[in-house]
Amino acid sequence: MTDAVERARRDVVIANRILAAEGVLDAFGHVSARHPLDKNLFFMAQSVSPELVEIDDIMTFDAQGNPVDDRRHASVERFIHAGVYARRPDVNFVVHGHTDEVIPFSITDVALVPVINVAADITAHIPTWDIADEFGDNTNTLISSMAHGLSLAQTLADHRVVLMRGHGFTAASSSIVQLVRLCVYLPRNARIQLEAMRLGEFRPLKAGEIARLGEIDPDSPASQRSWRYWARKCGCESLLENAGAPGRPAFSAS
Amino acid sequence: MTDAVERARRDVVIANRILAAEGVLDAFGHVSARHPLDKNLFFMAQSVSPELVEIDDIMTFDAQGNPVDDRRHASVERFIHAGVYARRPDVNFVVHGHTDEVIPFSITDVALVPVINVAADITAHIPTWDIADEFGDNTNTLISSMAHGLSLAQTLADHRVVLMRGHGFTAASSSIVQLVRLCVYLPRNARIQLEAMRLGEFRPLKAGEIARLGEIDPDSPASQRSWRYWARKCGCESLLENAGAPGRPAFSAS
Amino acid sequence: MTDAVERARRDVVIANRILAAEGVLDAFGHVSARHPLDKNLFFMAQSVSPELVEIDDIMTFDAQGNPVDDRRHASVERFIHAGVYARRPDVNFVVHGHTDEVIPFSITDVALVPVINVAADITAHIPTWDIADEFGDNTNTLISSMAHGLSLAQTLADHRVVLMRGHGFTAASSSIVQLVRLCVYLPRNARIQLEAMRLGEFRPLKAGEIARLGEIDPDSPASQRSWRYWARKCGCESLLENAGAPGRPAFSAS
Amino acid sequence: MTDAVERARRDVVIANRILAAEGVLDAFGHVSARHPLDKNLFFMAQSVSPELVEIDDIMTFDAQGNPVDDRRHASVERFIHAGVYARRPDVNFVVHGHTDEVIPFSITDVALVPVINVAADITAHIPTWDIADEFGDNTNTLISSMAHGLSLAQTLADHRVVLMRGHGFTAASSSIVQLVRLCVYLPRNARIQLEAMRLGEFRPLKAGEIARLGEIDPDSPASQRSWRYWARKCGCESLLENAGAPGRPAFSAS
Repeated sequence: MTDAVERARRDVVIANRILAAEGVLDAFGHVSARHPLDKNLFFMAQSVSPELVEIDDIMTFDAQGNPVDDRRHASVERFIHAGVYARRPDVNFVVHGHTDEVIPFSITDVALVPVINVAADITAHIPTWDIADEFGDNTNTLISSMAHGLSLAQTLADHRVVLMRGHGFTAASSSIVQLVRLCVYLPRNARIQLEAMRLGEFRPLKAGEIARLGEIDPDSPASQRSWRYWARKCGCESLLENAGAPGRPAFSAS
Repeated sequence: MTDAVERARRDVVIANRILAAEGVLDAFGHVSARHPLDKNLFFMAQSVSPELVEIDDIMTFDAQGNPVDDRRHASVERFIHAGVYARRPDVNFVVHGHTDEVIPFSITDVALVPVINVAADITAHIPTWDIADEFGDNTNTLISSMAHGLSLAQTLADHRVVLMRGHGFTAASSSIVQLVRLCVYLPRNARIQLEAMRLGEFRPLKAGEIARLGEIDPDSPASQRSWRYWARKCGCESLLENAGAPGRPAFSAS
Repeated sequence: MTDAVERARRDVVIANRILAAEGVLDAFGHVSARHPLDKNLFFMAQSVSPELVEIDDIMTFDAQGNPVDDRRHASVERFIHAGVYARRPDVNFVVHGHTDEVIPFSITDVALVPVINVAADITAHIPTWDIADEFGDNTNTLISSMAHGLSLAQTLADHRVVLMRGHGFTAASSSIVQLVRLCVYLPRNARIQLEAMRLGEFRPLKAGEIARLGEIDPDSPASQRSWRYWARKCGCESLLENAGAPGRPAFSAS
Repeated sequence: MTDAVERARRDVVIANRILAAEGVLDAFGHVSARHPLDKNLFFMAQSVSPELVEIDDIMTFDAQGNPVDDRRHASVERFIHAGVYARRPDVNFVVHGHTDEVIPFSITDVALVPVINVAADITAHIPTWDIADEFGDNTNTLISSMAHGLSLAQTLADHRVVLMRGHGFTAASSSIVQLVRLCVYLPRNARIQLEAMRLGEFRPLKAGEIARLGEIDPDSPASQRSWRYWARKCGCESLLENAGAPGRPAFSAS
């Protein structure tokens, strides 16, 4: 197994554990990574709660969401991931969760928008996908086929986050560092917006601010601060690349 | 003691501990299981807080809510359980709790409805029982007789959850896996609905969706993921059936 | 030292620790007990945060709130306790806290009323004391003299809880078991009422229900369940009377 | 290194850890101390999350926010601190955080005011700084230059707290004990005000009360109770001055 492949598999473990520890995922929800060498494959854990995911739980799936040479239980909602990877060649990592704070925005007509700078990566527009729009009232709401996954990915379009009516959200990025930070701050942004709306008219981040924040390289040592901190908090520091001193940058700035 | 009896008693322990760890039960509240071989009996812990329940705390009660050959303290509210088992032959497990999030719906005229797919098992209709309706203003609100228990069970009717005005809720199911998951997501569904109502009109789950989600077998290995995860989190994994690898399915899918 | 005196001192330790662990007290707040043999004295810890109180921190105070033969730092607000003991011969224990959930009711004209049966001991009427009413706008809000303490106690009158504007609450009872349970459920009742008010008209507990719940002996083995559970959770079980099995009744019902 | 310098560096460590443990700072945010012997310098940790800060992470910065003989990563927002120290000779300590509860007040026109006595140090007026007012819509919102820092400090003026639109807050004091307590109670005050506003008209602290509370010496042994308690909770007691008995005053009152 090459270093890049091992890195992607470890990042899936770390991200599962961080998002469980930070209260974004609970008994359900999952994280996947596109295979770095074969873009038609992706990695995702067998059917186990995110907090418990270990490196040996990682399975490999093909472009249709089928496990490759693996008879273990896979989450029925693996098609979320297959759908997004199929339509979004720029995406390397996908998260799906049922986080409470975002659901109110998925079942009402109020738009969730970035109101705090640390959540700017959610971008100014977050669409909502309603499974009933294309598949009617008689589904079990789960994304249990490629047709569902591709429909969701079409609503996601070129955004980073899509809400799912009465269900949760799916988020996608080229960078796991960016994606995990985005997922941690998404529910906090939702709660802040909700509280602000109680007080009256509120001012979201400005378009220029979102654009400028988006230019910061999420994989630079400086911006990895949160990733390293959360990994350490949930006991995954040993899985980090260039571990260095605990929670500290792996090398000094030049 | 047969395996089925031992299994039921262990499930009462696990469910008490999970619901305490997940914040659904606190110093009060209780879980019971119908005796799998004698449908007129049920198991419930002596009067001890849910987080502390151990296998030796389990007492046996008859159809009238009286302890069988046991002089330990029993909860005065054991009649909740006796009442539900009497009127609902399909029910094998009962939970009673005082969970904060559901109380506002018990003291107002707003209906609590499922808004998130993981809570669909609460079903579209949750009745509220008011002890004063049948027993007047002069009770201590506790379900301290079979008359109280049967009255509550009559309002529960064929639903899974009944709210109790200014008190809490009682939930019932044939499956402990389903019941515990339902109890974990009931308060979260309540809070999400409350937040959504701040934003304006909201869209609950559709009738077809609730029906389809209800067709998923709660005792299949795949749907036991949450049960196994929560049991592990609260230190009860050794009490699980077919423990297998920690938090993982006991056997692979065929 | 007699058993009754030692018991009162230990109860002050246990109550401080429980109320810190349950989030009712934080860095500030205090618990006191009247001396069981000399009604003019009371016990309270030296100036230390409630979570840290140990048996050797307990000081003795006289009826004017002065330490008896003790030069350690005492909380300036010991006059809360001295005032209540002076005016309320039936009171054996007093708690003062800054609990967030109750403050909104202290700075608005909305009455806090019992809405859940486990909080019935707060009783139907909770007055609010405003230090400015008697002492003007130019105080530091702290109860730093007998005049302040007696004024507060006069507003408390024959109730169990008094809110203090922009400050917190004081609660009093003849029973430490009742007082601690009341303090745990007071903020939860406040939050539930606040949430219910969002939904519309709400139904508080009825007068008859509050009266009947008030007839339950808080010191009976059965009703000590919460006290024993919380004491165990915060590491104080060894200080309990008749410890028995962990978190279980000390003796069986007859 | 003199005792005063070592004391200031340790206080930066303790304050970082307390504010992380108390939920005021998260992966981001920072604390600084002015150099006690050279007023043109200040101490702040290298780029690491507050919960992880140790004494060897402390770097020295000059009046322009440049590291002194140190090539480690520094937070880009060190200019917040440089700006405040430049304009406020009375300030010895500065905290910057993204605390959720204060943000709603930064993006609406509702003033955050002290409503509870333990938060009186935030004072009656908390201004809001909007980076766009002086620097336009096209910034990344971060305080990444002396121009930004001085602009923020000008809005802070002679207050203790300034909100930053869609970003967080900055607070400053001559005393670390006062500053940390203020930062712990700032979000709690915000939440209480928000809840009170739901109930109707609310009564903030009175001007005289804020003034009188401000006269209490934050560095007296009695008022250090919270500082010592929080330091102990987050494992920093050994870094305290005159440690004495755990969480207790270092010496008795005369």
